[in-house]
Amino acid sequence: MEYILPLQKLIEQFCRLSGVGQKTAVRYAFSVLDMSEEEAKAFADAIVSAKRDIVKCEICGNLSDKPVCSICSDERRDRSVVCVVEDAKTVMALERVKEYNGTYHVLGGAISPMDGVGPDELRIGELLDRIRKGGIREVILATNPNIEGETTAMYLSKLLSPLGVRVTRLAYGVPVGADLEYADEVTLLRALDGRRDI
Amino acid sequence: MEYILPLQKLIEQFCRLSGVGQKTAVRYAFSVLDMSEEEAKAFADAIVSAKRDIVKCEICGNLSDKPVCSICSDERRDRSVVCVVEDAKTVMALERVKEYNGTYHVLGGAISPMDGVGPDELRIGELLDRIRKGGIREVILATNPNIEGETTAMYLSKLLSPLGVRVTRLAYGVPVGADLEYADEVTLLRALDGRRDI
Repeated sequence: MEYILPLQKLIEQFCRLSGVGQKTAVRYAFSVLDMSEEEAKAFADAIVSAKRDIVKCEICGNLSDKPVCSICSDERRDRSVVCVVEDAKTVMALERVKEYNGTYHVLGGAISPMDGVGPDELRIGELLDRIRKGGIREVILATNPNIEGETTAMYLSKLLSPLGVRVTRLAYGVPVGADLEYADEVTLLRALDGRRDI
Repeated sequence: MEYILPLQKLIEQFCRLSGVGQKTAVRYAFSVLDMSEEEAKAFADAIVSAKRDIVKCEICGNLSDKPVCSICSDERRDRSVVCVVEDAKTVMALERVKEYNGTYHVLGGAISPMDGVGPDELRIGELLDRIRKGGIREVILATNPNIEGETTAMYLSKLLSPLGVRVTRLAYGVPVGADLEYADEVTLLRALDGRRDI
């Protein structure tokens, strides 16, 4: 083994992060060794706290540090419009536009038979419950513009149309094949403005 | 604030790592949220353990999980040769060569008046003590080939020559595998000066 055990273990942990290879993990591990003991403790605590204190909003499924997220509990938001997204990262991307004033519904993924994700793995039942409770006039399908996202949007549009709500899809202002998380604000704004009935 | 507090704090912690900006830190924070609670705990523990369990070898100053590092305690290593390096990362780089069989001495940096690092901040006294104890015939100065490293090497060579040990410096030249077209003038000059018969 090239590294002493505690260092090797730390490098392995950094390798678990998205997009981190061996060389980068080594650099990060040395960053930790360069920290004071208090700084390293604060870092470790932030990891544990984030996992412990961040929960899913019981209404929309968005990340939250309270049972109901700040968007769902905001009286100024238009609760008659629900934007359905795959994950919390997309909520953040749409919030950065500072234009959308409705609420969200986070599915927790997209239908993907290849990855063994069917409709039952997603928060679709919760979405139907919200619509059946009434007060929702429009559902904007903002799943990613790739195969899985399109499949999910098609599935949801068929499921929701009998419920008497307007179902719209983000306009193809967003580049096809990309991930919504990385779309720029202007593109997202165009996509919101150009939404169409499906 | 764009993110909920526990997430914001985690992002800030990732920003402390060498070379990590805001976008990368956000990606890492979401990686942590995607982990199970046990995985996040293991990650946090690895950080705390690394800081707690990794100490400086009391002989050479290299990173170690025991009071004396594996190189200093290895009976097969040639203790009459000491390679002086700036940090533990250089020890690892040299160990990867699998050719050097001597021991090391980690200075903990290089002389840099700009950064307020003088000889007293480095483990130079410890190096002199090791030499005075006897048994060392050669000291290889392997500080970095930049201004600070050169200054440190010059300083050490003056300090060590009266002690009756052979003091050597790593050879300068063009890096193997590199393109001569992109080598800087100083390196090419040193490579020419140090040319050998083949």
